[in-house]
Amino acid sequence: MGDKNIGGAGLRGQSAGETKLCTVGQSGSGLTYCGYDVADLAANATFEEVAYLLFNGELPTQQQLDDYKQELFALRDLPDALKAVLRLIPADAHPMDVMRTGCSFLGNLEPEQDFSQQVRATNRLLAAFPAIMCYWYKFSHEGVEINCQTDQASLGGHFLKLLNGKTASEQHQRVMDVSLILYAEHEFNASTFAARVCASTLSDLFSCITGAIGTLRGPLHGGANEAAMDMIEKFSSPEDAKVKMAGMLERKEKIMGFGHAVYRTSDPRNIIIKEWSEKLAQENGDSSLYDISVACEEFMWDTKKLFCNADFFHASTYNYLGIPTKLFTPIFVCSRLTGWAAHVMEQRENNRIIRPSADYTGSEPRIVVPIEQREQHFQQLAMQG
Amino acid sequence: MGDKNIGGAGLRGQSAGETKLCTVGQSGSGLTYCGYDVADLAANATFEEVAYLLFNGELPTQQQLDDYKQELFALRDLPDALKAVLRLIPADAHPMDVMRTGCSFLGNLEPEQDFSQQVRATNRLLAAFPAIMCYWYKFSHEGVEINCQTDQASLGGHFLKLLNGKTASEQHQRVMDVSLILYAEHEFNASTFAARVCASTLSDLFSCITGAIGTLRGPLHGGANEAAMDMIEKFSSPEDAKVKMAGMLERKEKIMGFGHAVYRTSDPRNIIIKEWSEKLAQENGDSSLYDISVACEEFMWDTKKLFCNADFFHASTYNYLGIPTKLFTPIFVCSRLTGWAAHVMEQRENNRIIRPSADYTGSEPRIVVPIEQREQHFQQLAMQG
Repeated sequence: MGDKNIGGAGLRGQSAGETKLCTVGQSGSGLTYCGYDVADLAANATFEEVAYLLFNGELPTQQQLDDYKQELFALRDLPDALKAVLRLIPADAHPMDVMRTGCSFLGNLEPEQDFSQQVRATNRLLAAFPAIMCYWYKFSHEGVEINCQTDQASLGGHFLKLLNGKTASEQHQRVMDVSLILYAEHEFNASTFAARVCASTLSDLFSCITGAIGTLRGPLHGGANEAAMDMIEKFSSPEDAKVKMAGMLERKEKIMGFGHAVYRTSDPRNIIIKEWSEKLAQENGDSSLYDISVACEEFMWDTKKLFCNADFFHASTYNYLGIPTKLFTPIFVCSRLTGWAAHVMEQRENNRIIRPSADYTGSEPRIVVPIEQREQHFQQLAMQG
Repeated sequence: MGDKNIGGAGLRGQSAGETKLCTVGQSGSGLTYCGYDVADLAANATFEEVAYLLFNGELPTQQQLDDYKQELFALRDLPDALKAVLRLIPADAHPMDVMRTGCSFLGNLEPEQDFSQQVRATNRLLAAFPAIMCYWYKFSHEGVEINCQTDQASLGGHFLKLLNGKTASEQHQRVMDVSLILYAEHEFNASTFAARVCASTLSDLFSCITGAIGTLRGPLHGGANEAAMDMIEKFSSPEDAKVKMAGMLERKEKIMGFGHAVYRTSDPRNIIIKEWSEKLAQENGDSSLYDISVACEEFMWDTKKLFCNADFFHASTYNYLGIPTKLFTPIFVCSRLTGWAAHVMEQRENNRIIRPSADYTGSEPRIVVPIEQREQHFQQLAMQG
């Protein structure tokens, strides 16, 4: 393919707009949200502060944060009609289909009537997503209709309590918070770009987020931490991991959780979540899942010079938190919603409809052959070769 | 803005990939699907033939068409759980939110497990969309639970019978068919591009179509025929139309249904649907809606040199068919699904994840100020600034 078609290959490296929200792989600092290094935020802020930052451009003062958390607190419960819809979704449904449908349905009940409601609609989804995920999961898998409200102050703590029915430890709440921070925003990744394409027609926020969820669902985007978990739980020890991964490479099987489309030398989120995974392993007593993960990391670096991305040590981390593997990608939704919504708001500020062109490679102009003559026509074409 | 940012302005004129499906505004012929002029298809084919063409690259023989219509016929009814969801959506919901949710929910019940099921999943949506739209509409607006199956051979006839409870005339069925052909496909428009971005993560068909519906919902994309209808029904006569439109222009109000992002001199679909609108006006006896529409066309050309696009005469056409204005954009969904799905299939054939870059215009690197110091910090910044 010539130069002309480079643009067609996934728009890689082509600018599709401007953003104030994020840099990925620039200026040595790896990943920044609104100018803040993600490592700094993961160490010194909470997820709600990061959400506030993405929506407002500045971190909140204590008073602003308190007000914001109170606002979110009041928006957590689900309408009865939404609960009824979630009860109609079978246990074997893809959890991302559940999130996509829950978001879309809520848009019928509480539509964003105009853009002045965009912050309210965003906060509503941010507060409601943990319950959408857990209400469906507990009902379909355990037959339990959970109370969608908890006494937990943070969204991370709220999610863990909805899932486990009890207040999580301080450390578990903090890990959940860090994880939500790490996944919150990542520039023009495919799901965020899908949200902006949707926003560019001036569609509503629920449509934009619904489309983004569907896009994140694809195995080339979300889901890598689930795939990593599926792999490492098959390994019985670090040694076993190395033997089996060598076999996977030999059979050219895809190994998820390594390398990245944008980062070249490392994923700045990996070192952060890896440290937390280690702490949870120590707390747990049985550190084998962490040890196996480290063996995988070493093996992939030694054999393929591939580094762990954000997803790989999330697998063991979430497992130590007692989270079922099938909820890993829906948690990604709960976090990335902040980035998606911030991009939708930014697109609306200076909008032009996103409508690229295509290179045509199809048939020359031709004329409709009457249907009764087509069989003969196709036979003639086939004979002509 | 400099050259660097042209790419950011909606990717206008930039290639984002290849397609065999469609040309828009090329080689004098206006709009082609797989090499066929849309006017030729509208005159000499049916919507099901066009759907078959888009999915298979060739028009069907009579036998292939008969088999295809039989397959679609068997896929029209809705599962009880989907009907229950539609009954939970209030009458004042946005009809595009209903379509988006119906599509998303069906993906939970009948997921596309792998891409070998893409044609089946597409046909399922194609067959089910008229019932999703009409079942919700009749239940929420009239309290009637309709039977979602009819004896009608064509999807256009099926839709009109679901809506009106009786078999439509031959002419009405033919107009519906032509309308569905005209809206079927339009290259990399925003909703189709959203579907391809979603497909590029290897997500499932229901996610791609759900995202496309949400994108079409935006007033810059779908909805122009509804807006045109809202306008022309306020005009009492051709003279009144011209006076009131002059007032609208003077007040710089937006007039929908004119001009186009890609076409420069005319929209090839306009002349086709305009002729059908005229025939329906003659049949109806009261031609005032058509006469008013013609007056609008003349006025916009004389004053602004703007031509009617596909949407403008669709307003009077659909109105003559007895279709409520709020269902105009959902009908667009029933038609454009064919183009969306064909693009998803094409994207999958030669996929690379669509992940463009962004130009960063945000804050310089900065450090997280501890929350208890932020209020003071912001005050200092304000004094400095």
